[in-house]
Amino acid sequence: MADAILHEDPRSGNCYKIKLTAALLGIEIETRQYDILAGETRTPDFLATVNANGRIPVLQVGARFLPESNAACWYLARGSALVPRDGFDQADMLRWMFFEQYSHEPNIATLRFWLRFVGEAHLSPQQKAQMMAKRIAGCDALALMDRHLSARDWFVGDRVTLADIALFAYTHVAEEGGFGLGDYPAIQRWILRVREQPRFVPMD
Amino acid sequence: MADAILHEDPRSGNCYKIKLTAALLGIEIETRQYDILAGETRTPDFLATVNANGRIPVLQVGARFLPESNAACWYLARGSALVPRDGFDQADMLRWMFFEQYSHEPNIATLRFWLRFVGEAHLSPQQKAQMMAKRIAGCDALALMDRHLSARDWFVGDRVTLADIALFAYTHVAEEGGFGLGDYPAIQRWILRVREQPRFVPMD
Repeated sequence: MADAILHEDPRSGNCYKIKLTAALLGIEIETRQYDILAGETRTPDFLATVNANGRIPVLQVGARFLPESNAACWYLARGSALVPRDGFDQADMLRWMFFEQYSHEPNIATLRFWLRFVGEAHLSPQQKAQMMAKRIAGCDALALMDRHLSARDWFVGDRVTLADIALFAYTHVAEEGGFGLGDYPAIQRWILRVREQPRFVPMD
Repeated sequence: MADAILHEDPRSGNCYKIKLTAALLGIEIETRQYDILAGETRTPDFLATVNANGRIPVLQVGARFLPESNAACWYLARGSALVPRDGFDQADMLRWMFFEQYSHEPNIATLRFWLRFVGEAHLSPQQKAQMMAKRIAGCDALALMDRHLSARDWFVGDRVTLADIALFAYTHVAEEGGFGLGDYPAIQRWILRVREQPRFVPMD
């Protein structure tokens, strides 16, 4: 019996965050897979049972459902070495996780989804009109990360935390969204450090 | 001597979240004020010292600086009655805070900023092109909140938590962004409940 069930689409970096967190902690989770592009997370049953917001990932624990990838990572990792005990460091870890959802994911993950999975030819005029702004904002996020990592190995403190896991998910596949990582040497070194963690699992 | 210094623009709901959290907890904080519209958070000094991301709020604790409004609320409230002790409820509170930053703030707060402070006549063509999508996504977020609150008083558990504070900040001024709250009676009742909390302070 697994500790939790992850409702996911394996192409999603947000789902991968949760699987990587569970793997690093040695927690077994089951998965249920949905095809976002086929609308499988917008069915009446999904909306009524799993997530009224129509999004994955959702972590199911018993009969309760927890949307939002970073909240699910917190649920699995609270009290573990992936969460700093120091109060400021703990808040600083959450700071990078909020940064990820506000300044990183809507730009880098969205362009990856549009370019790799939807296809540029199938984008709406409104989506096309947003591409340049997302490109610039995504580069800003990567530049900020690179400066931060230029003098340190990890985002918070001196070891891997959920901040690294949250930011790794879409950064290490940013090139699929058209973001070359050649200009960000500190990010490249940090990606190697994350991959070298014991029990690391790659994205599907 | 205050416990912390908040670098803020009083017009920002993200800054208000932190002041409301501090007020409910009886924590004294100093403030330093900046005018976002005048570029005061993009000066070389601000970027080098306070936040390389050029944004407020930032909570300063001693010589350390903590960006991201919801991370600052966490820092102030960890261990208090505003954060559930139960592991799932705690993660569920963070779930609503990530929802706020991903699905609520970029739509409702951004339209409020554009319409009330920038002025529709001064928006760029690209901003104007995004207004309809933000209007729809903002209404979706409010509808989800209203359904959730229709059978309960608070977002998580049976008392006010940081989830309520984070969502209250821009919801209670959503009409300044052109979002009428008449269609959301459960939200209206919840706004009154938040206002009735002991030590509640209004937004400036």
